[in-house]
Amino acid sequence: MIRHPAFPEEPWKIRELHLDLNVLAQTESLFALANGHLGLRGNLDEGEPAGLPGSYLNSFYERRPLAYVEPGYGYPESGQTVINVTNGKLIRLLVDDEPFDVRYGRLVKHERTLDLRAGMLERLAEWTSPAGQKVRVSSRRLVSFTQRAIAAIAYQVEPIERPARVVVQSELVANEQLGGTVLSSDPRQGAPLQAVLQAEECHDREMAVQMVHRASISGLRLAAAMDHFVDSPPGAEITTLAAPDAGRVSITIRLEPGQRLCLVKFLAYGWSSQRSRQALLDQVQAALTAARHTGWDGLVQEQRDYLDEFWNAADVELDGDNEVQQAVRFGLFHILQAGARGEDRPIPAKGLTGPGYDGHAFWDTETFVLPLLTCTLPPAAASALRWRQNTLPTARARAQQLQLNGASFPWRTINGEESSGYWPASTAAFHVNADIADAVVRYVGMTGDTEFEVDTGLELLVETARLWRSLGHFDSQCHFRIDGVTGPDEYSALADNNIYTNLMAQQNLQAAAVAALRHPERAQSLGVSLDELREWRTAAEAMCIPFDEQLGVHQQAEDFTNHQAWDFANTPPEGYPLLLHAPYFQLYRKQVVKQPDLVLAMHLRGEMFTAEQKARNFAYYEPLTVRDSSLSDGTEAVIAAEVGQLDLAFDYLVEAALLDLHDLEHNTRDGVHIAALAGAWIALVDGFGGMRNHGDDLCFSPRLPRQLERLSFKLRYRGRILQVTALPQSAIYALLEGAPVRLSHHGEPFVLSATQAVTRPIPPAPRGPRPKQPPGREPFHRDSES
Amino acid sequence: MIRHPAFPEEPWKIRELHLDLNVLAQTESLFALANGHLGLRGNLDEGEPAGLPGSYLNSFYERRPLAYVEPGYGYPESGQTVINVTNGKLIRLLVDDEPFDVRYGRLVKHERTLDLRAGMLERLAEWTSPAGQKVRVSSRRLVSFTQRAIAAIAYQVEPIERPARVVVQSELVANEQLGGTVLSSDPRQGAPLQAVLQAEECHDREMAVQMVHRASISGLRLAAAMDHFVDSPPGAEITTLAAPDAGRVSITIRLEPGQRLCLVKFLAYGWSSQRSRQALLDQVQAALTAARHTGWDGLVQEQRDYLDEFWNAADVELDGDNEVQQAVRFGLFHILQAGARGEDRPIPAKGLTGPGYDGHAFWDTETFVLPLLTCTLPPAAASALRWRQNTLPTARARAQQLQLNGASFPWRTINGEESSGYWPASTAAFHVNADIADAVVRYVGMTGDTEFEVDTGLELLVETARLWRSLGHFDSQCHFRIDGVTGPDEYSALADNNIYTNLMAQQNLQAAAVAALRHPERAQSLGVSLDELREWRTAAEAMCIPFDEQLGVHQQAEDFTNHQAWDFANTPPEGYPLLLHAPYFQLYRKQVVKQPDLVLAMHLRGEMFTAEQKARNFAYYEPLTVRDSSLSDGTEAVIAAEVGQLDLAFDYLVEAALLDLHDLEHNTRDGVHIAALAGAWIALVDGFGGMRNHGDDLCFSPRLPRQLERLSFKLRYRGRILQVTALPQSAIYALLEGAPVRLSHHGEPFVLSATQAVTRPIPPAPRGPRPKQPPGREPFHRDSES
Repeated sequence: MIRHPAFPEEPWKIRELHLDLNVLAQTESLFALANGHLGLRGNLDEGEPAGLPGSYLNSFYERRPLAYVEPGYGYPESGQTVINVTNGKLIRLLVDDEPFDVRYGRLVKHERTLDLRAGMLERLAEWTSPAGQKVRVSSRRLVSFTQRAIAAIAYQVEPIERPARVVVQSELVANEQLGGTVLSSDPRQGAPLQAVLQAEECHDREMAVQMVHRASISGLRLAAAMDHFVDSPPGAEITTLAAPDAGRVSITIRLEPGQRLCLVKFLAYGWSSQRSRQALLDQVQAALTAARHTGWDGLVQEQRDYLDEFWNAADVELDGDNEVQQAVRFGLFHILQAGARGEDRPIPAKGLTGPGYDGHAFWDTETFVLPLLTCTLPPAAASALRWRQNTLPTARARAQQLQLNGASFPWRTINGEESSGYWPASTAAFHVNADIADAVVRYVGMTGDTEFEVDTGLELLVETARLWRSLGHFDSQCHFRIDGVTGPDEYSALADNNIYTNLMAQQNLQAAAVAALRHPERAQSLGVSLDELREWRTAAEAMCIPFDEQLGVHQQAEDFTNHQAWDFANTPPEGYPLLLHAPYFQLYRKQVVKQPDLVLAMHLRGEMFTAEQKARNFAYYEPLTVRDSSLSDGTEAVIAAEVGQLDLAFDYLVEAALLDLHDLEHNTRDGVHIAALAGAWIALVDGFGGMRNHGDDLCFSPRLPRQLERLSFKLRYRGRILQVTALPQSAIYALLEGAPVRLSHHGEPFVLSATQAVTRPIPPAPRGPRPKQPPGREPFHRDSES
Repeated sequence: MIRHPAFPEEPWKIRELHLDLNVLAQTESLFALANGHLGLRGNLDEGEPAGLPGSYLNSFYERRPLAYVEPGYGYPESGQTVINVTNGKLIRLLVDDEPFDVRYGRLVKHERTLDLRAGMLERLAEWTSPAGQKVRVSSRRLVSFTQRAIAAIAYQVEPIERPARVVVQSELVANEQLGGTVLSSDPRQGAPLQAVLQAEECHDREMAVQMVHRASISGLRLAAAMDHFVDSPPGAEITTLAAPDAGRVSITIRLEPGQRLCLVKFLAYGWSSQRSRQALLDQVQAALTAARHTGWDGLVQEQRDYLDEFWNAADVELDGDNEVQQAVRFGLFHILQAGARGEDRPIPAKGLTGPGYDGHAFWDTETFVLPLLTCTLPPAAASALRWRQNTLPTARARAQQLQLNGASFPWRTINGEESSGYWPASTAAFHVNADIADAVVRYVGMTGDTEFEVDTGLELLVETARLWRSLGHFDSQCHFRIDGVTGPDEYSALADNNIYTNLMAQQNLQAAAVAALRHPERAQSLGVSLDELREWRTAAEAMCIPFDEQLGVHQQAEDFTNHQAWDFANTPPEGYPLLLHAPYFQLYRKQVVKQPDLVLAMHLRGEMFTAEQKARNFAYYEPLTVRDSSLSDGTEAVIAAEVGQLDLAFDYLVEAALLDLHDLEHNTRDGVHIAALAGAWIALVDGFGGMRNHGDDLCFSPRLPRQLERLSFKLRYRGRILQVTALPQSAIYALLEGAPVRLSHHGEPFVLSATQAVTRPIPPAPRGPRPKQPPGREPFHRDSES
């Protein structure tokens, strides 16, 4: 938990008023800047102290061998790990021979502000050196949304009381020491790699330095460059130096009180698996030249314009809880940062904010992040799915290796190859394939983007449908069974007929058939025959949906409800997360749920359950669900809201929204939880907004918890911008942009046009007792934070 | 397959008439000598060429860290690997400056003989050096059954035509290079460790050398010593030298044709985890002194006497197949070598014949090896079970770590700690605990050894019963379920209610209750209450036994028969063993059986199945069983024989018996398969002899296959020696030693006394079609060998 009196509740800013070195690593994640291509952790300009230094380029990784204690057929032989690339954020400062280091002397004033509308990190420090010299240092940092290779820093220093001699060293450093990382038995942490960059070239010219490095094993090549603009009183002495792993521009000057040294640092990055050193150097040099040409003020203005356009169709407003208001915008901003300019690259679980999970992307992206991007920045969602399409050759080869048809996408990866060393929780979790298909269906449904459907969507649907057809089989009663797979609940594995998997596979098979009929020519080019279509439909219709007649609830998987319940009563609070305190053996064989599985199925395939089934299922599974995964809250909130448990839904919303700002999982240091942050948006839009898109019309069933007086969100829908506003008793629908559209409110269709907002009353919520969570696993309460 | 024209069929000898270096490693395993404490591979005296040099001490291991790609709670942090200890077998020879090396010059004559009655490996070589010098070299080697620390070699060399100057170097070498081992992706191979012995001391005196070494990580300490007796014409010059890793006694002499240099080498080994260097040195020195005192001839005589006594109550004779006759005795001899003098140490899967499976012991010992030892050398069986008892503290701690009660024994181990790095096929295979209990029940039933039951057996039964009680739970219909475990079939894992596990657990619970009531005082000292007894009985009575009503067969585990059948038709012969060509994911979720599981349950708990069920089950599972484990054949033979498939049973017998002599699994180089060799004995005694001991009487239902004219086996039973002889139409029971006893023949009880053999007619076998195996997995046929 981040426990300093920072972060006053401001609607558009995260502001830190006090520097607590104990949570420095966490704040580096929170204050990270990224554009989906380049990410810089919020490290202090002077580099030290640091929790975890980090600069990342999307998909720039090193390979590491995966050596198994007991090898097995089809185990991946190497994994990928995101690496800390050349650090260009560094600006060291010497004040009268004393290095500016907040651990020494006295930090009189400290403020860091992440401005969500400006897209900028601002810092202000007033520091008294051990020798008593007082200086004011400020910096503004941005990673450009409009020029994806570019980051820029405006840095200023001035003495406050007495004249001072200052030396500013602006650096570009490769293979920096990753101090403070220790090997851990926590599988969620990344495996840190040190000094993996081989220097290939370095150059300096005037105030610019360029460097080329290569990752030894993956062979990926990286160029980084910096250039500077200096504004100072006369007398500054500037020297530039480039060595293989370190470039430096030093500015030395004597300043009187009131005089300032202002430095603008432009940074450019580029990487490639194929391009030559010279081509890469040219590329970053061109980017740098363009950035210099735009200038600092120009970059700031472009950034603002880009964000204004984003917020114009993505903002969520809520009255009644300022902290959650702030947190939801913080989440939206970080998701934008993770996906904005990925450009056919993955969106990792931590975005580009830290090395957690080795920088891998998971199913989280399709299931939690893309729903948000699909509604707010559709091109980013399309781009993430095109990345999947680009990795189809690898996924087809993997399917073949696994003796399956179609494509089998990896559980965790950077480059498309499976990178997991524990197959029961990865290879066996085939639902990732249906999740990708689900994201395609959702994207096409929300955008009407036919070109995407033809070029990308259909191929993904067809190859995953083929996978499902080969994964399942018809038993003697002609039921279509999918045996021995792992669903979203990672505390169960290798189960028969996991209900989430089966329902998502069913949708995948059906959607592939529908899309193939819609685009017969493209389908034919993919080798789809009418027989194949029929097979998909037959399998989908015969899909096993396990149900316990005696209990009257669905089974998460066959036989699940016959298993022993976890001994929650004897599990102390410090026994969580269970995976760190109990063997998989016990977790898998008992009724205990890490994260929503059946409940997620009720969200994503809600049309397959009656309202009564949803309520009964939720009441049964809620006391078994420990939420040891941060992916839980959004889904819990959605179904809690749907079954009328609005108080509980609100609690889950709060937990999701504050996950990183309060460091509830104690691992924000490794990066923010992109999917969990998306979960807060899902809790609001699909939960209290009741948005579903199962059929032809986009449906809303808004219903507010007592804690909120108003919830208003915007979203893009088939070329339009909609705004939905929920009040305690009524909902108001407005069309901000685009042609009239049919929507539905609590099951009743209506047409919305730009001329007239539509107001509808909200029917009362169903009532029932609040389901209990396992003891000690109740959702987080802000008052209980201690 | 071992494909040289060696091994003529001789009833009491394995004789090799031609040296084929391509199968040198395999013959080193076949010709290994051991006594359960010390094992020497059949390496050539001169050390090179070697397939795999090997000298082993039971339980002398090095630790190796187990580093996981994705760590998990409760994963063992280090494993144990048997190591090649100080090599004392080495006797190098120089003939006129040319080293005796069969790869050079010409090997005119070669013969190696393993004498199963003498317990000796004899070698004869006539060699012409590249320079044309002809010599005759012979050696006899034994590892003493009567003096367990001792091995001895009688070595002779003589020139044949011309005088020769010979130098014999008798060596003691630590950390010898293990050439020829390559890292493999085959999980069945051991992980070779090189140069792990740290030299602590070395001494020489006259013709003796002593050395002390320590394994770096495990800290185990080892002393090895050699002494010599030389008999030669006058003029021999003898020098002795000791260095930290090499000791040497050199004898130089000029020999005329007809003159011989005769050398007797005595070797002594000792190790300890606790004793000091001096104590260890004294211990081996004392053993060496005693051996010298006994002398070579004395050791040979003791060896013969020991083996005469063994064969007197253990021999199996069969008429009709000389090769199988030879092979069965070969197997008995190797099992004796593995278990004779283990003395409360484990019996590893490869005995002490090679580094396969890292030298670990598995459930194989209790389920396949101990039945044989219980009937032929009961103290060795008791000793192996006392080893389990000695490791109870570790097994209790493991149970606690796994959140279970009682004791949880390891899947693979040397020192009692779990040493497996893949939990679904190890930790989850809890049946090992019931297998240990089964071995206790069998041992007590066959020997009537009450002292053992009180001191050792009851504690093992109680602690394993406690485990089962905590592993299972009562479902809403009050069935006792054991969910998420792995049975003997390693191509299924983490299944609910594995029938083998449940039936063996049931017996375990019942046996613990019965034994506790028989010895109430001891039971009380183990904390057993009447409530606990009642719980065990209730659980046993309510045990789930899955049955498919529609198919009319038992299910190997719940839902097993609903799974897709493996696509055998499209699996080519080179696709086996499946584990090297298919992912676990596919194996686990389909109907394909690596090794008998339900069929083994029908053997060990035969009283729980009707004759009709056995026949139906066998017919259903046989076409699914690929026998990728060498443990399969014995069990297959037993049930095939019981259901009347005598031809098929004979084929399985042949496969089991010849497994190592024909290298059918292509890994005899790593050591012989002790449990599979025991399987051949089981095929004969429990299969064609029909021996069962489910109730109070020992029962036989002999029935010969057409390939055999007579089968006669001896065994020890409650202080008696019985001999059972099966002929095509009748069986003859003789009591060779001991008091009259009640037995049963094909269900009819009779009393056998020493005065009068009993002859009974054999009823005709039930008939039915021969079940098919998966294509390409039919049992091995000798004619088809190519």
